[in-house]
Amino acid sequence: MKGNCVVAQSGGPTAVINASACGVIQEAMKHEEITGVYAAHNGILGVLNGALFDLRREDPAVIEGLKATPASALGSCRYKVRTDEDFRKILDVFRRYNIRYFFYIGGNDSMDTADKVSALAAREGYELRAMGVPKTIDNDLACTDHAPGYGSVVKYLATMVMEAGRDTEAMYTTDTVNVIEAMGRNAGWIAAGTALAKRCEEDAPHIILLPEVPFDVAAFKARVEHYLATINRCVIVVSEGTKYPDGSYIANQTGEFASDAFGHTQLGGAGLFVKDLVEREIKVKARFAIPSTIQRTGAHFASLTDSMEAYTLGTEAVRRALAGENGKMVTLERTSDDPYRCETGLALLSDVANGEKLFPREWIAADGFSVTGEFDRYARPLIQGEVKPVMKDGLPLFVRFRKELVRPA
Amino acid sequence: MKGNCVVAQSGGPTAVINASACGVIQEAMKHEEITGVYAAHNGILGVLNGALFDLRREDPAVIEGLKATPASALGSCRYKVRTDEDFRKILDVFRRYNIRYFFYIGGNDSMDTADKVSALAAREGYELRAMGVPKTIDNDLACTDHAPGYGSVVKYLATMVMEAGRDTEAMYTTDTVNVIEAMGRNAGWIAAGTALAKRCEEDAPHIILLPEVPFDVAAFKARVEHYLATINRCVIVVSEGTKYPDGSYIANQTGEFASDAFGHTQLGGAGLFVKDLVEREIKVKARFAIPSTIQRTGAHFASLTDSMEAYTLGTEAVRRALAGENGKMVTLERTSDDPYRCETGLALLSDVANGEKLFPREWIAADGFSVTGEFDRYARPLIQGEVKPVMKDGLPLFVRFRKELVRPA
Repeated sequence: MKGNCVVAQSGGPTAVINASACGVIQEAMKHEEITGVYAAHNGILGVLNGALFDLRREDPAVIEGLKATPASALGSCRYKVRTDEDFRKILDVFRRYNIRYFFYIGGNDSMDTADKVSALAAREGYELRAMGVPKTIDNDLACTDHAPGYGSVVKYLATMVMEAGRDTEAMYTTDTVNVIEAMGRNAGWIAAGTALAKRCEEDAPHIILLPEVPFDVAAFKARVEHYLATINRCVIVVSEGTKYPDGSYIANQTGEFASDAFGHTQLGGAGLFVKDLVEREIKVKARFAIPSTIQRTGAHFASLTDSMEAYTLGTEAVRRALAGENGKMVTLERTSDDPYRCETGLALLSDVANGEKLFPREWIAADGFSVTGEFDRYARPLIQGEVKPVMKDGLPLFVRFRKELVRPA
Repeated sequence: MKGNCVVAQSGGPTAVINASACGVIQEAMKHEEITGVYAAHNGILGVLNGALFDLRREDPAVIEGLKATPASALGSCRYKVRTDEDFRKILDVFRRYNIRYFFYIGGNDSMDTADKVSALAAREGYELRAMGVPKTIDNDLACTDHAPGYGSVVKYLATMVMEAGRDTEAMYTTDTVNVIEAMGRNAGWIAAGTALAKRCEEDAPHIILLPEVPFDVAAFKARVEHYLATINRCVIVVSEGTKYPDGSYIANQTGEFASDAFGHTQLGGAGLFVKDLVEREIKVKARFAIPSTIQRTGAHFASLTDSMEAYTLGTEAVRRALAGENGKMVTLERTSDDPYRCETGLALLSDVANGEKLFPREWIAADGFSVTGEFDRYARPLIQGEVKPVMKDGLPLFVRFRKELVRPA
């Protein structure tokens, strides 16, 4: 089927979401069936507003540069498509621009949107192939072994924990405890990932607080005191989603901007909370770090495995669409741990949209403050290799699109 | 003069302070005059407590590995030597262990300590050569063009700002403002360094808040609104040392641990303060990041120039001591900006101890929210090249000493 394609990125950026966009774009440009290769400016908002830009008018070197540029070069958003009017508007824009291929790089909500657009198009007899490309640092996407973006956030955050851990090791006579806050609203995937930094008992992190384990102040205090007594220091990784036994978050942001467009509570401050708790309850000085969005955009130290998988999934989405697939997300299917091997597969967008990959309970150690070797087996392959940043004047060189908007066909 | 040497590290870690230690150790081991090569465990505390370990009993590969290991592998402290009793104790330990060479890697306070020990030894007729090796991310050391540690924190933090800046650029429809807190208690050297990340008007950082510029809420607000109106987003770097016109810090930590052993106020929370201010005053959502000790220990992306200079200064301190120097700190003297060239020199420890290198007022732009091209000329050469981290299983490999204590001679 001949027609134009549009690629869009949605939700929180990652270090490798642009690698997926690069895969989609470079693959799409190879095929005659795909005439115009467009990007939606700022995710689904770009589609709704008819703000599409022409990727064939961008410098091919810039497109190639996506592989080493973090965050969403096409622009992203957190707009939740809910109303029939919105879905109808999306289809109208697709009609006007003769969009026949829609590649949506994102998480749960994006897969839901792509699925509903695809269904509406089918009902209206408009031929459209909508394909999802998985993306999330949170690694909570169903139907895929893991999501691109996860390996890189883990590699980078684990490195931060190792490095800051050495700082605490050097300074334990004054700064005894260090608390590092990890992202991850609902699942402990990211915080758990920092366990990869620990090669021996002395190494950080010493305690990991996961959202899956109700925060038990007394047990936590005893654990910190154990480390202070044995190695004179304690490095703690706390997930922003850590909760009390009653289900309430240990640290909520308050005020006007305390929840996002999806109604998700915006977290932050869990690190500060734990630092204060340690100082108040254990009477030792603690430091804290909140890497926030820095952790998810570490392109200068992204996982090469992650980046290559992100790129491959982009190309694969295009190939599968051209082969006639529609309403599916391309997935990663692990066929072997050692040597690590993943193949690509397909899942129904609706299955992804309605699913959630929880952190396996059996990978949480009995003490609740660390993870098992099974997790290492799962996650270790995802952080192998480093993306070589393109450097200029001592700093990475990132690309930026000119974003010339296209007119309707 | 034949005898043992001791090397010590003091104060806050850097990404390259171990490179200086490596320089001292490898150079000391080459010379017959230096018999025992010892390290003080935890800076001057190790000397006071007679906790010295034998570097000849450590694996040479571990010593070599110092070049890519962050923080202070010998251990550090913030103990301020003040009393005559302490100084006498230090000299006693030197006598007992036949220490004739003392290499102290640190900042202001360390140079002061080394100077006083040297003077006491002279008064008592004990032959000792005490040499300082500069180290501080703060870059506020007098008598040297710059201090090792500074180039690496700037390179890494500027990269973080670039990467998080791309995040904000992608997400501006929801997360419009991002605030990143930089270290730097008294001087804006580190915060200013993030200006290197900005290649064009669109690039982060858009606003830099320096301790040297009294925080003017109205001017700040106008500046943020300017960026929101022109590029729909604003990335702000705030130095932890930013002050109101009356000299009080915009954000102080409170509580029992609010000041360190030197009486310096422990800062933190400036980033959170500015985020809250933006949300309250400008009514847009803001995010914040507090990289804290992570920024100063980024060995995985340290500046090669910085690391090589740190190493060279270590070796140079040993050579100069063997040539008869005493009571001096080795310095960097810039002889050319382009091509960048630095030679090593010497300064009196007392001059360093009593001096302070302020951030030049003339390098602050007229608006007070950015720096001039002169700063770029100064700082750009310091971030060139990358230290290649030694990798294992997808993460950096750092070394650790066995620390076998030695007995008195």
